[in-house]
Amino acid sequence: MSKKNKLKKSNKAGLAPGTLYFIGEKKVEDISVALINYNLEKTDTHNLKSNYLEQIETLSSNVNWLNIDGLHNLDEIKKICESFNIHNLAMEDIVNTTHRPKIEFFDDYIFIITKMYSYNQKEGVIQSEQVSLILKDNFVLTFQEEHGDVFNPTRERIKSEKSRIRKLGADYLLYSLLDNLVDSYYQLLEDIDNNIDNFEQSIIKDSNSISLTDFFTLKKSLLFLRKSVWPLRDISSQLARGEHDQISNSTLPYMKDLYDHVIQVVDSVEVFRDLTNGITEMYLSITNNKMNEIMKLLTICTSIFIPLTFIVGVYGMNFEYMPELKWKSSYFFLWGLMFFITISLIVFFKKKKWL
Amino acid sequence: MSKKNKLKKSNKAGLAPGTLYFIGEKKVEDISVALINYNLEKTDTHNLKSNYLEQIETLSSNVNWLNIDGLHNLDEIKKICESFNIHNLAMEDIVNTTHRPKIEFFDDYIFIITKMYSYNQKEGVIQSEQVSLILKDNFVLTFQEEHGDVFNPTRERIKSEKSRIRKLGADYLLYSLLDNLVDSYYQLLEDIDNNIDNFEQSIIKDSNSISLTDFFTLKKSLLFLRKSVWPLRDISSQLARGEHDQISNSTLPYMKDLYDHVIQVVDSVEVFRDLTNGITEMYLSITNNKMNEIMKLLTICTSIFIPLTFIVGVYGMNFEYMPELKWKSSYFFLWGLMFFITISLIVFFKKKKWL
Amino acid sequence: MSKKNKLKKSNKAGLAPGTLYFIGEKKVEDISVALINYNLEKTDTHNLKSNYLEQIETLSSNVNWLNIDGLHNLDEIKKICESFNIHNLAMEDIVNTTHRPKIEFFDDYIFIITKMYSYNQKEGVIQSEQVSLILKDNFVLTFQEEHGDVFNPTRERIKSEKSRIRKLGADYLLYSLLDNLVDSYYQLLEDIDNNIDNFEQSIIKDSNSISLTDFFTLKKSLLFLRKSVWPLRDISSQLARGEHDQISNSTLPYMKDLYDHVIQVVDSVEVFRDLTNGITEMYLSITNNKMNEIMKLLTICTSIFIPLTFIVGVYGMNFEYMPELKWKSSYFFLWGLMFFITISLIVFFKKKKWL
Amino acid sequence: MSKKNKLKKSNKAGLAPGTLYFIGEKKVEDISVALINYNLEKTDTHNLKSNYLEQIETLSSNVNWLNIDGLHNLDEIKKICESFNIHNLAMEDIVNTTHRPKIEFFDDYIFIITKMYSYNQKEGVIQSEQVSLILKDNFVLTFQEEHGDVFNPTRERIKSEKSRIRKLGADYLLYSLLDNLVDSYYQLLEDIDNNIDNFEQSIIKDSNSISLTDFFTLKKSLLFLRKSVWPLRDISSQLARGEHDQISNSTLPYMKDLYDHVIQVVDSVEVFRDLTNGITEMYLSITNNKMNEIMKLLTICTSIFIPLTFIVGVYGMNFEYMPELKWKSSYFFLWGLMFFITISLIVFFKKKKWL
Amino acid sequence: MSKKNKLKKSNKAGLAPGTLYFIGEKKVEDISVALINYNLEKTDTHNLKSNYLEQIETLSSNVNWLNIDGLHNLDEIKKICESFNIHNLAMEDIVNTTHRPKIEFFDDYIFIITKMYSYNQKEGVIQSEQVSLILKDNFVLTFQEEHGDVFNPTRERIKSEKSRIRKLGADYLLYSLLDNLVDSYYQLLEDIDNNIDNFEQSIIKDSNSISLTDFFTLKKSLLFLRKSVWPLRDISSQLARGEHDQISNSTLPYMKDLYDHVIQVVDSVEVFRDLTNGITEMYLSITNNKMNEIMKLLTICTSIFIPLTFIVGVYGMNFEYMPELKWKSSYFFLWGLMFFITISLIVFFKKKKWL
Repeated sequence: MSKKNKLKKSNKAGLAPGTLYFIGEKKVEDISVALINYNLEKTDTHNLKSNYLEQIETLSSNVNWLNIDGLHNLDEIKKICESFNIHNLAMEDIVNTTHRPKIEFFDDYIFIITKMYSYNQKEGVIQSEQVSLILKDNFVLTFQEEHGDVFNPTRERIKSEKSRIRKLGADYLLYSLLDNLVDSYYQLLEDIDNNIDNFEQSIIKDSNSISLTDFFTLKKSLLFLRKSVWPLRDISSQLARGEHDQISNSTLPYMKDLYDHVIQVVDSVEVFRDLTNGITEMYLSITNNKMNEIMKLLTICTSIFIPLTFIVGVYGMNFEYMPELKWKSSYFFLWGLMFFITISLIVFFKKKKWL
Repeated sequence: MSKKNKLKKSNKAGLAPGTLYFIGEKKVEDISVALINYNLEKTDTHNLKSNYLEQIETLSSNVNWLNIDGLHNLDEIKKICESFNIHNLAMEDIVNTTHRPKIEFFDDYIFIITKMYSYNQKEGVIQSEQVSLILKDNFVLTFQEEHGDVFNPTRERIKSEKSRIRKLGADYLLYSLLDNLVDSYYQLLEDIDNNIDNFEQSIIKDSNSISLTDFFTLKKSLLFLRKSVWPLRDISSQLARGEHDQISNSTLPYMKDLYDHVIQVVDSVEVFRDLTNGITEMYLSITNNKMNEIMKLLTICTSIFIPLTFIVGVYGMNFEYMPELKWKSSYFFLWGLMFFITISLIVFFKKKKWL
Repeated sequence: MSKKNKLKKSNKAGLAPGTLYFIGEKKVEDISVALINYNLEKTDTHNLKSNYLEQIETLSSNVNWLNIDGLHNLDEIKKICESFNIHNLAMEDIVNTTHRPKIEFFDDYIFIITKMYSYNQKEGVIQSEQVSLILKDNFVLTFQEEHGDVFNPTRERIKSEKSRIRKLGADYLLYSLLDNLVDSYYQLLEDIDNNIDNFEQSIIKDSNSISLTDFFTLKKSLLFLRKSVWPLRDISSQLARGEHDQISNSTLPYMKDLYDHVIQVVDSVEVFRDLTNGITEMYLSITNNKMNEIMKLLTICTSIFIPLTFIVGVYGMNFEYMPELKWKSSYFFLWGLMFFITISLIVFFKKKKWL
Repeated sequence: MSKKNKLKKSNKAGLAPGTLYFIGEKKVEDISVALINYNLEKTDTHNLKSNYLEQIETLSSNVNWLNIDGLHNLDEIKKICESFNIHNLAMEDIVNTTHRPKIEFFDDYIFIITKMYSYNQKEGVIQSEQVSLILKDNFVLTFQEEHGDVFNPTRERIKSEKSRIRKLGADYLLYSLLDNLVDSYYQLLEDIDNNIDNFEQSIIKDSNSISLTDFFTLKKSLLFLRKSVWPLRDISSQLARGEHDQISNSTLPYMKDLYDHVIQVVDSVEVFRDLTNGITEMYLSITNNKMNEIMKLLTICTSIFIPLTFIVGVYGMNFEYMPELKWKSSYFFLWGLMFFITISLIVFFKKKKWL
Repeated sequence: MSKKNKLKKSNKAGLAPGTLYFIGEKKVEDISVALINYNLEKTDTHNLKSNYLEQIETLSSNVNWLNIDGLHNLDEIKKICESFNIHNLAMEDIVNTTHRPKIEFFDDYIFIITKMYSYNQKEGVIQSEQVSLILKDNFVLTFQEEHGDVFNPTRERIKSEKSRIRKLGADYLLYSLLDNLVDSYYQLLEDIDNNIDNFEQSIIKDSNSISLTDFFTLKKSLLFLRKSVWPLRDISSQLARGEHDQISNSTLPYMKDLYDHVIQVVDSVEVFRDLTNGITEMYLSITNNKMNEIMKLLTICTSIFIPLTFIVGVYGMNFEYMPELKWKSSYFFLWGLMFFITISLIVFFKKKKWL
């Protein structure tokens, strides 16, 4: 799990609530603001530099998607939010990148916080990035920590002339973005699934070869993933219930579909937890079993040779008067005796099913 | 568990929601469409080839069961669904063979996704196949991944002249099909039950003989089974509540009976989980016990012979001045001493209840 | 747990729902039907042979208890049920002896399925028998698998002239029968309690003496008991709520009392589960402890004698030039050295608290 | 846990419901009945002998507390209950000392069953005694199994002239008695807390010194305590909701306070459970650790001396032609070799961090 | 966990409910009362000595925060509470420093009990202090056990002229104080998080180096923290629902924000629990693994040298007639044999993957 999942509110502790304070790592140099503006006929993409707020005001009759990358420039964030009349506390949550996923219905807009996950194969950790979404009338605002996201499929669809998204409103755009997000969870779950499979195969083949530390890291990732997936259930079920004016009735079946997908993700995370617990159990059983094997060998080996060594020790003694030493056949008789003891013990172990 | 239970949505990630995209293995070459059409007087079975949609339209006054095997031919699926006015998203779910079981009430039809399980004795895995059911007026549509299913009992009953199914509507047909499905779960549970019994007997007889890997596979199967059985509870309880026009009042007691059976399946799966946990515990206890046995033998053996070996070692030393070596009876006295030590140790172990 | 608790529906799979099909072992040769018919003034007991249905119709003004032993004669069962207008599906449940306990409110009768338990001391297993009860107007019908039941106290009370049961209606009779059932659970719980106590005492005295297999069987029994006790909660609470016309208000406090007793049974089963888990834990701890004891002895024994054996081995070597061998006091000095080593090691182990 | 917590209903099984039957041990010889009767001006205490019921009838205008010690004299109990019109089933519950704590609202009185706990330091067990309370108009009836209780604080307060209890009604008296009961639970919890602390300290100091049996007894006590504390939650919350006429509004805040205290007791019991589980875990870890220590010593000791013993054994052989035996410095060279082997092994173990 | 978290009500047991009785340690010598009184224009801070109640009465038109440090002077506490018409039972709860966190809505004020945590690095324990808050009209009263708290940020803000707190009412002040409290939990959670990280790192590096006792103390801290964090959920959710007149609508979003933060704290505590359980599991696995390593070495070492020692023992025997002793090459042949045995065993262990 990347360090980013840790809670880091304390350096903010003491500030007045509603004070804008960026919590997290600064991941990009500059804030970049991109506006995609489309209707049935055309799609325009603008990379807004300065005085974009005025630009925005002129074109509000279509569906607009305003995407902001970078959250550390608090003045800019504030200016944008204020131009949309976003509540102070929502603003504060946007720039607190450790916030728990949640949905909040304000009178005239919907505010959603989610996490976007990606598996960093190089470092073997799951990286999360906070994405906040606001749906207000014909605008969808998305706030991300850095460039690069999982929303390209939506971008493609907006560009494609005959896609459904061009015919529908901003609520469908919101759905489309959330659907992209949940789709990215599937990718992550597949990676984890493969990981679990690998551990399982390794344990069956050779229980020593697996790295307990890696396995523990996997379990930890599941813990954190679970923590951010569960709130998604609540978010999507509230959207599917359609109690807010911003969600039109025609979008409701899509929101319900989103809910279905989230439930499937939650189910999978739970199954993965049970699976990892099962693997731990199997690991313990196999280790135990091996120990038994080892101890058996030790015991068999010791039980056979220790008595024999004692016997030969007896006739290594230097007493002047030891009658057996003088008998001619006693050496060969002793070999016979030792052979008999060995056979008896082997039969005994066979009967105990140790051999 | 067959690989099919894994989630595989990611290769679809990026497609617009509602886009038909087949997820799963292509299991049959061609789609085959079978129509069974019956009323009190007669039963007709048609294997529809082409232009079946026109054929269907001509005969809609009876109860009709349209069964489609094979989901990869998206155009055909789409044509059929559209002729029944099925929603895009439902279509999408039909061809996504990794979907979670669910029920959805649309205005004029009921849409159900379930899993059909069979135990593949040859490979020792449980195979699942997704079955989607749609009840719309006097039509029941079933979509399967491949030929072969658990619905033959219903087919028999439709053919039999005096059966209740001939007297009742399409909602009873839906119930009958779901009942067949749940019955097939009982068969599966019996197999699992026998499997668990076998493991238990094996552990009691000889804990080494069981394959931990197989046991873990069993536990995994239960996990996946549980994941698809729990949603069935919801499906059957919603049907039993009879809140949709498509379910007539006379069918409700049957739906309630279905719910009873599903609950029994859920209960059994839970009991099986507890049982397998109990077996794991017993396995650990027995292994522990065995280890104790082994260690006891090792300790007894070592504790008796190591001191004796030391003693005979003493008199194997080559010092010039060792008075005992010259004494006549010292050899026999030593045997006496060693005998005494051995007896004392045996008494000691007897008192410790190790022997 | 007797085999009877297993699910065995599959041999019925394929039959039309509502088809009568006996599931279970045939335990008695013939169905026997007994009718107890009483009011304030008199009590009549009839063993009905043939044409009993006509007999029944003549005497319906009192409270009647019709008890049927034996469920395999489906024709007879059907005849009886049909004369009381019992629904097909209820009939089916009566003869399916693997059904989950449940209560169902039909328009003019109440249908209850329960399990009757007895501890078969000879085979050490818990035997269950399904009992179905129907309350319809002034009739109570009970269906059992075989002769012999826990209802004798009720029979006694019916015979006793001044008992409350003679003054009250069929709903009180139903209560009285269910109360007998729950009382029999107490007997069973006491047996299990004693069993758990025995295991606990055995483990404390000598952890080797207990049979892990028997203990596991006990845990399994609790699992199955739990499975049939939990639904009883639901049954009794629904009866206590008194939402059905068949239950008069004066009987409600008794139903509530029944509910109290069921809760106590459920509580006890849960406590027993925790107790058995605790015993497993204690068993593991004690076994672990013993292993520690054994290993300590082994280690002490080995650590003392192995160095000594090495030392005497040194002076058993046959090198021509070993100066010590010639010295007069070296033998006695060596004994001194060995004595010193032994004492040092004993002090070391004492300090480690191993001795 | 004293035997009294066991369920012992079965010897009653077969009796008609509502039949008075004393379940439990007879702990006192005679029933003793004490009446405390008070109002703002005066307090009278009477030890009633015979014909007390008439006495009671004469003085009913004040607040009255009728306390009965001893439950085995069923006739007397019945007489008292009947004079207050207590329902048969409540009577039955009063004399069944194994009943689960509960509250029942009858039309004109409130009936409560609770457990009173005391820690018997001599035998190291927790003793429970059933206390039933009835609030009816200006009367509070308490039924106990034996003399001696936790209600003395209330008695003191009644005697004290300016106490609040003298100003308020019988419902406040009921509250005061229940509060005494819950206070006694605090005492018990402190004892258990100390016990747990002791175990924890002992394990840290020397894990062998603790008695696993005692620890298991503690865990069992918690199980039984939990079983009787949970219903108290329900009892106090129902009283705090004030839905019964017998509870006046002015007493409600006190009942709510009682509920707070019960919640705190429940919380503590849960925390104690987690604590004991943690201790079990720690015990296992420490034992495991110790085993590791022991095995390390054994392995080090064996690995060093077994090769050495082999080497000196080689030169103890009696072959006629062994060139080394004749060399002058071979004995000293051998010592050098053995020294080198020993050092190498010690370095090896140091590197493995075993030394 | 500091001793303070223990329940200590018993020394109060027996006192009349509502009697003021200080439970806890006396941590400061004198009660000190500070009043901060502010409105938009000005802020006044008073350290009240005597006759402060009169002083208070004169200035009640602004927002007032009355902070009391020290709870042992019951007369003063009583005087203050009575002048605000606080209920007896609330007073009692204020001076019982072991009370469970809770919220209570009285008719004209809100009463809250919370815990303030701080990590005492010196002693390695978490210290808790009870803080009670009362919101009544334009007054907020806070009762603490000793000087020093987490409320300084609020104090700063009150002094700052343009802060939002100056513009809003006493309900916002209450929110601000609670927010400070929850912020301090974040600090604590970070400390615990670091602690868990350290344990994890230590176990991976060298499982012997960690102190099991410290780890258990950490787990215990989490238990107690959990016990006081869970009620906070209830407190904040009740405040966020805004059902009490004292909370104005404009403060509700802030209370909701508070609830969000509390949920995040609760989530983290749960994740920490799972993490510590995972660490325990990993510890056990690693210890088990190590044991396996040790036993393998022991077994390999013993299995190789014990047979060899036996062989050389054979030729150390002193029989007069042992033909091999006379053969010239038998010594060298024996070395060959022993070499062969050693190689065979090493190959055997290699194949078993023990080497």
